Amino acid sequence: MRKISIKDVAKQAGVSIAAVSQILNHKGQRFSEATIEKVLQAQNELGYIPNSAARNLKGRHKRLIGVIIPSFRMPFFADIIQSMQNSAPEDVNLVFLGSTDENLQDAIFSLVERGVEALVFGRLIPNSNEVNIFLKKFHIPYLVLDQNADINAQDMVQINEFTGGSMAANHLLALGHRNIALILPNNLTDNMLQRRAGFLDTLSTANLRPKKVIETTLSKHGGLAAVKQLIQSNSTAAFILNDEMAIGILRGLAYQHIKVPNDISIIGYDDTDYAEFMIPTLTTIAQPVAKIGETALKMILQRLDHPNLPFQTEFFDVKLVIRESTGPVKHYQDNT
Amino acid sequence: MRKISIKDVAKQAGVSIAAVSQILNHKGQRFSEATIEKVLQAQNELGYIPNSAARNLKGRHKRLIGVIIPSFRMPFFADIIQSMQNSAPEDVNLVFLGSTDENLQDAIFSLVERGVEALVFGRLIPNSNEVNIFLKKFHIPYLVLDQNADINAQDMVQINEFTGGSMAANHLLALGHRNIALILPNNLTDNMLQRRAGFLDTLSTANLRPKKVIETTLSKHGGLAAVKQLIQSNSTAAFILNDEMAIGILRGLAYQHIKVPNDISIIGYDDTDYAEFMIPTLTTIAQPVAKIGETALKMILQRLDHPNLPFQTEFFDVKLVIRESTGPVKHYQDNT
Repeated sequence: MRKISIKDVAKQAGVSIAAVSQILNHKGQRFSEATIEKVLQAQNELGYIPNSAARNLKGRHKRLIGVIIPSFRMPFFADIIQSMQNSAPEDVNLVFLGSTDENLQDAIFSLVERGVEALVFGRLIPNSNEVNIFLKKFHIPYLVLDQNADINAQDMVQINEFTGGSMAANHLLALGHRNIALILPNNLTDNMLQRRAGFLDTLSTANLRPKKVIETTLSKHGGLAAVKQLIQSNSTAAFILNDEMAIGILRGLAYQHIKVPNDISIIGYDDTDYAEFMIPTLTTIAQPVAKIGETALKMILQRLDHPNLPFQTEFFDVKLVIRESTGPVKHYQDNT
Repeated sequence: MRKISIKDVAKQAGVSIAAVSQILNHKGQRFSEATIEKVLQAQNELGYIPNSAARNLKGRHKRLIGVIIPSFRMPFFADIIQSMQNSAPEDVNLVFLGSTDENLQDAIFSLVERGVEALVFGRLIPNSNEVNIFLKKFHIPYLVLDQNADINAQDMVQINEFTGGSMAANHLLALGHRNIALILPNNLTDNMLQRRAGFLDTLSTANLRPKKVIETTLSKHGGLAAVKQLIQSNSTAAFILNDEMAIGILRGLAYQHIKVPNDISIIGYDDTDYAEFMIPTLTTIAQPVAKIGETALKMILQRLDHPNLPFQTEFFDVKLVIRESTGPVKHYQDNT
């Protein structure tokens, strides 16, 4: 069939070729709605694609990188994938999959089947041995993001979580707190295990253990649900293993008219972009999320270009961000 | 090459077949670390995939649906894609792309090239005519989510945004407010244009116009930056076009020791999952986000099964969620 030309569109729409060209190039403001409509309709009926558009639509071959994360609702991962998105080179397309343990292998297979060239895992890999074997067979390099427990570790991005937990403990100890609660999610990732280890290790150097350990679900509602136990524990401070839970704690304490930090100090973890907008603003441990996403992408692209490079691990440090939600412990006399 | 069997792994690891089977099926707790390590290493070296895993990894063919959204950092979209993820049937894989106007056509092409079977657009489509022609040529059905301006509209999910804006205005008017500010992002999506239209239309029925209209960036920081102008406007209430900006406003007002709702009432839009955790909790207009995501997915899968169905549009209503951030206007005498 003969290739449809701009002439055909002009003829069918009953307007000049110049008019069609300007309208299809979005420079048709001076034309009436009716004329624009006629031209677009003719374009539609004839299936005419302007050369400019054709060029765009064909594109050159792009490298497709798959990124698998546990949830799109956790700001930590949303920030990471957004930073990968923002730093992706022209010739790279990123696709993101949320995946539960149950369907992870299916998700991986589906991406490989669709010609994904490399994978980034932002989640723990169950059966990592089988996954590793499978991806090796298909020559798909992969990078494990923000996880340290993979026995088949290839390229890795590691965050100094132990130090993060330790910083949180030191901050509260320096403020004079001795009755400190620890609030954990029911299921701890390997990173969180290290956070906890760093926190407990530092408390123990002061011959302390947590006044109370509370387990709850990894969400704002989980934090809210933990507030009653936290209050009953008579702790003067609490380390909450992520900001999402800490936001729920702040809200729950406000419902009970308990003042932060006057009555109790609260420190979270992650420094998600909500932390600085809380009332009070949330003291937390900042992970360099944007840097983590960028680096992970850079490393996996490097791996694609140089498959035989030795496996690399990039380490990232965390830092304490002191805001309004932590303060000195009150002595009894002024604890009114 | 002969297929590697469990026998080979047992032989190489120097353990029994039963041991290998139990360890590779994650029932090997009773074995020593060393034994487990030996078996996993042998499995690795020989590239043995247990039948159970092989079954998982092969999977049956899954339908791949591509979802393109403007940003992973906007809770509204994060909620929608999470709800699609959660409601996706066994035989469907969803991949999500964040895309700017500039690279949208490339992103689409890349997904089509990879064998995506249908697309859901969670963002405005620039050059929608060309995109429409391109996708028609490849017989890729698509659904436009949360947008109303697409002249090539196929299946659509529409939200009654005009009513949403009107509800916000009515709520503030009913509380006695007459000096009402309107806070907008610099760039308004078609949905937001309708929100604003509903709001202005309802104000005008009370012979009112906004006391002040403030444009800012579509983010928490954008809201924060708008606070100075809001205070100078002497408004007693403000309608902010989304919750993200409203969260920034709440924080900025707190920095200025301006009490919400005593000094000024604040109403947002979206009811993202942070709204109920703000201090004060945020009055807002709720979109049935989870329902929207589920329905969009259901509709596009239906379209795949029945390509010749007439195009469908699903309408969703919004509702006013009254929380702590709005209250009655103060009369001058008690406005201290």
